[in-house]
Amino acid sequence: MAKVEVMENILDANDQLAAQNRQLLNGKGVFLVNFMASPGAGKTSAILRTIEDLKGAIRCGVIEGDVASSVDADKVAAAGVPVVQINTGGGCHLDAPMIRGALEQLPLDELDLVMVENVGNLICPVGFKLGEHLRIMVASVPEGHDKPCKYPSIFIQVEAIILNKIDLLPLVDFDMENYHRLVRGLNATAPVFLVSATVGDGFEEWTSWLKGRWEGFKADLEWKNLASGVA
Amino acid sequence: MAKVEVMENILDANDQLAAQNRQLLNGKGVFLVNFMASPGAGKTSAILRTIEDLKGAIRCGVIEGDVASSVDADKVAAAGVPVVQINTGGGCHLDAPMIRGALEQLPLDELDLVMVENVGNLICPVGFKLGEHLRIMVASVPEGHDKPCKYPSIFIQVEAIILNKIDLLPLVDFDMENYHRLVRGLNATAPVFLVSATVGDGFEEWTSWLKGRWEGFKADLEWKNLASGVA
Repeated sequence: MAKVEVMENILDANDQLAAQNRQLLNGKGVFLVNFMASPGAGKTSAILRTIEDLKGAIRCGVIEGDVASSVDADKVAAAGVPVVQINTGGGCHLDAPMIRGALEQLPLDELDLVMVENVGNLICPVGFKLGEHLRIMVASVPEGHDKPCKYPSIFIQVEAIILNKIDLLPLVDFDMENYHRLVRGLNATAPVFLVSATVGDGFEEWTSWLKGRWEGFKADLEWKNLASGVA
Repeated sequence: MAKVEVMENILDANDQLAAQNRQLLNGKGVFLVNFMASPGAGKTSAILRTIEDLKGAIRCGVIEGDVASSVDADKVAAAGVPVVQINTGGGCHLDAPMIRGALEQLPLDELDLVMVENVGNLICPVGFKLGEHLRIMVASVPEGHDKPCKYPSIFIQVEAIILNKIDLLPLVDFDMENYHRLVRGLNATAPVFLVSATVGDGFEEWTSWLKGRWEGFKADLEWKNLASGVA
């Protein structure tokens, strides 16, 4: 079937370029985190709060992916952080070539960590590797507790879940026990951080965890370089 | 380019089947409404409330589209309404062939209106006609007022917007004046209904409007049949 073959070719090409992105990032010692979420779950707010919390410890950059507009990139730029906007022009996900172009525009030598805000979509971004070291998801309480049933792939594939807008818990129909059971049915290990990105609640645990992952990445790179005689 | 050609062929085939769906629906006098939204905006709650409000006046059926699970179809079935679940198995939108299969399983002779709950996604469903008579969008206040900037296509293409969860307005960062300006910049005519689907606020205007559209559809069909000597 022609359709399937073309799709496989696209994915193959994407995976190859994702591997090249990873190589570039490892060479520069930059850790890439892919933030995926529904529209309006709070990716930008979570990224802004993470930048704030890591200030002075980890030098952050951001790649903003949107179908259209630069509203999020403008907010990140206002936080004084290097940012590149990708407009997909209708496309429903970011892919490795887009990330390559954006990485080439960032001052990688002056950065430790780059956060990618993927297009707001729980389905399509999951299928496209970017070369990231970490995939995480921002979920939000007003979306309801049944999302793991409906979008299982993303819950299976992420390594952490930021559950945002917990300040709205008393006001919306969100059954935490049920959510816990559904998430753990798909993903036995990903930590779930209960936060309010606008208020700031619960962010310390998330940023500590992220910092830990970044430390692990740096240690691993140093060890590899030592073993291969690079450093 | 192979990729583009294949995509065009798929869309052509889809459009042809969408036209056939429309013909089937017109023959049966059934009005098809396509509900599109982000994950968790409240499509199912809005559909359930609409069924409740139209009870006794318009006989409703529902087609539930989800990547996986039947949680929404179960809720609709509990409301005593004929419902068919489509699981796309990873697919990010419904298409005309899926709707065809679902229509064949519904008792169309006993229905006046079928509501389709598309997959939760603001991007991909917009490109695929189903044969529907009306496309509407459910947006929600916690998603934020900037969504028209980021997902312009859906705002351009829908004929009505149900803005849900207005009971959360005092608690979240949602600038109604800005939202109004952004929506009207993309769509000069679609009415925006401010509602709370769980509480029920604002639903009367929406269901009256929908009923009006349905009356127009029936009148148009009768007139066509009269003119062509069918009835």
